[in-house]
Amino acid sequence: MTETLGSTGEFGLIAAVTKGLSTGEDVLVGPGDDAAVVAVPDGRMVITTDLLVEGRHFRQDWSSAYDVGRKAAAQNLADIMAMGARPTSLVVGFGAPADLPTAWALELNQGLVDEAELVEVSIVGGDTVQSDKIIVSVTAFGTLDGRPPVLRSGARPGDEVAYIGRLGWAEAGWAVLARGFRSPRAVVEAHRRPQPPYAEGPRAALAGASSLCDVSDGLLSDLGHIAVASQVAIDVHSQALTVPEPLQAVAAATGVDGLKFVLTGGEDHALVGTFEPADVPEGWTVIGSVAEGNEERPAGTVTVDGAAYADDAGHAHFRS
Amino acid sequence: MTETLGSTGEFGLIAAVTKGLSTGEDVLVGPGDDAAVVAVPDGRMVITTDLLVEGRHFRQDWSSAYDVGRKAAAQNLADIMAMGARPTSLVVGFGAPADLPTAWALELNQGLVDEAELVEVSIVGGDTVQSDKIIVSVTAFGTLDGRPPVLRSGARPGDEVAYIGRLGWAEAGWAVLARGFRSPRAVVEAHRRPQPPYAEGPRAALAGASSLCDVSDGLLSDLGHIAVASQVAIDVHSQALTVPEPLQAVAAATGVDGLKFVLTGGEDHALVGTFEPADVPEGWTVIGSVAEGNEERPAGTVTVDGAAYADDAGHAHFRS
Repeated sequence: MTETLGSTGEFGLIAAVTKGLSTGEDVLVGPGDDAAVVAVPDGRMVITTDLLVEGRHFRQDWSSAYDVGRKAAAQNLADIMAMGARPTSLVVGFGAPADLPTAWALELNQGLVDEAELVEVSIVGGDTVQSDKIIVSVTAFGTLDGRPPVLRSGARPGDEVAYIGRLGWAEAGWAVLARGFRSPRAVVEAHRRPQPPYAEGPRAALAGASSLCDVSDGLLSDLGHIAVASQVAIDVHSQALTVPEPLQAVAAATGVDGLKFVLTGGEDHALVGTFEPADVPEGWTVIGSVAEGNEERPAGTVTVDGAAYADDAGHAHFRS
Repeated sequence: MTETLGSTGEFGLIAAVTKGLSTGEDVLVGPGDDAAVVAVPDGRMVITTDLLVEGRHFRQDWSSAYDVGRKAAAQNLADIMAMGARPTSLVVGFGAPADLPTAWALELNQGLVDEAELVEVSIVGGDTVQSDKIIVSVTAFGTLDGRPPVLRSGARPGDEVAYIGRLGWAEAGWAVLARGFRSPRAVVEAHRRPQPPYAEGPRAALAGASSLCDVSDGLLSDLGHIAVASQVAIDVHSQALTVPEPLQAVAAATGVDGLKFVLTGGEDHALVGTFEPADVPEGWTVIGSVAEGNEERPAGTVTVDGAAYADDAGHAHFRS
């Protein structure tokens, strides 16, 4: 008989999950008390939270429990990176039906642990409840190591726009899965498990980035956040963007412009920012420019090759 | 036409919710960027997280949105208090169907804000997603103001057990609501909106509490956490406990022993701890004693008047 959460019970699950946790030396009180206590030598804590819901953010038939764990951790750790900070710890809330196999919960946990260990992050606490659909709530913490945070509001006219990481891969993977296919494998894997360039957040901060944003909603949408917060006009130069081969294949098969994946696809958790031209770090790709707003291109807007992008949907919740 | 989350949209909701937030001076970067940044002058952050799910932790017909918000904040802030810490900030994850009236979400938010303001806590960030059932995920933060945390593991033989706050009220309220009644009003209100004695956590720490625990699962269950973590035997003296009048009324109407509500009812978020006899703070009620384990009463167990309590169910998730 398959062991389920109903037979394992809350305390059994918590015991199984916390047994395997290794916690760094900055974890003063780990899981098992009313709350955790972590050291914050910098005197400032960077905090972000994300909620993943089955059916909305993942499907059990599209993603393994392990992949859901990797993704839930990744998207939070990426938000920490996008402040120019280094992730340090996280807490997890988990809801699931009583008939969920216990193995599923343990694999999810392993995914969370493995993604966290990529960046030497400790899981310091959590909560476990019963719910109809699987829910994964992650709150992640980071340190600025003495630096100021890099906000969305610091872009200045004359800056260049540059990014690092993947654009459009997860969206192309979703397009494939939604049509009942499983290939190209590279984009399906990208949908299941993003690969944020974690080290690039602090690196961009040290290089003097004037603004930074995690690409979770889509490049144009997230650049829009920078444009609004900084009150500047941003123009993306489409010639600087390439459509990788797997995305071209999906574009051809689905009748979509491949560039649309790159410009509007979210959930790869690339990092985009603005820099004075001399400050762009090696390995980043310059894809646009920052200007003062004018009548034609007002502050707060993003254009592609000087014009509004017709297909700029981005990733909006509560709308279908 | 009633405005719903579908028509308001994610960004509309976030704008409405963040507009009313007042943030303390320790909030260096508030809502609106990839992550928040808060000052942690103590150099240590106390962290706890809880997940509330519609149908499991609250019902729309039993609790108003405002009450759900108060309760979601309260149960997390109580965990901070139970470390002997003072709450400082929190982040909120919110999931809901697109057809939920926007007013419901705004009332929930007002409940969170009002409970947080009781203890001068700032809401520094959040996430909003679509889900079938309403989900509220709260992660709360606190400071020890230079003191060591008060753990569950510090109880010592010879200590007295004392508590402050309400015991059994929320459970009695649940029993009433489950039978389709709405009175006694006092216990129904207690189910909807706990009143944790927030200031008592730091006060107990200053008085020299050797252990502390938030009563969220039920007095015996939570004392069990202290007994296990401290490897001591705890005996509760039932004569020291009173069954308040509204609980007696519910007990009589439902055929339950009123003392059972007091011993096993959770979710009132009273505070229980252990102290050397001279250290028990004024206003706390001594209800038991701590001893070394022996054959009759092994370490890690809790007894009532020297014997196992027959009805010790506590509050277990994943079991019905």
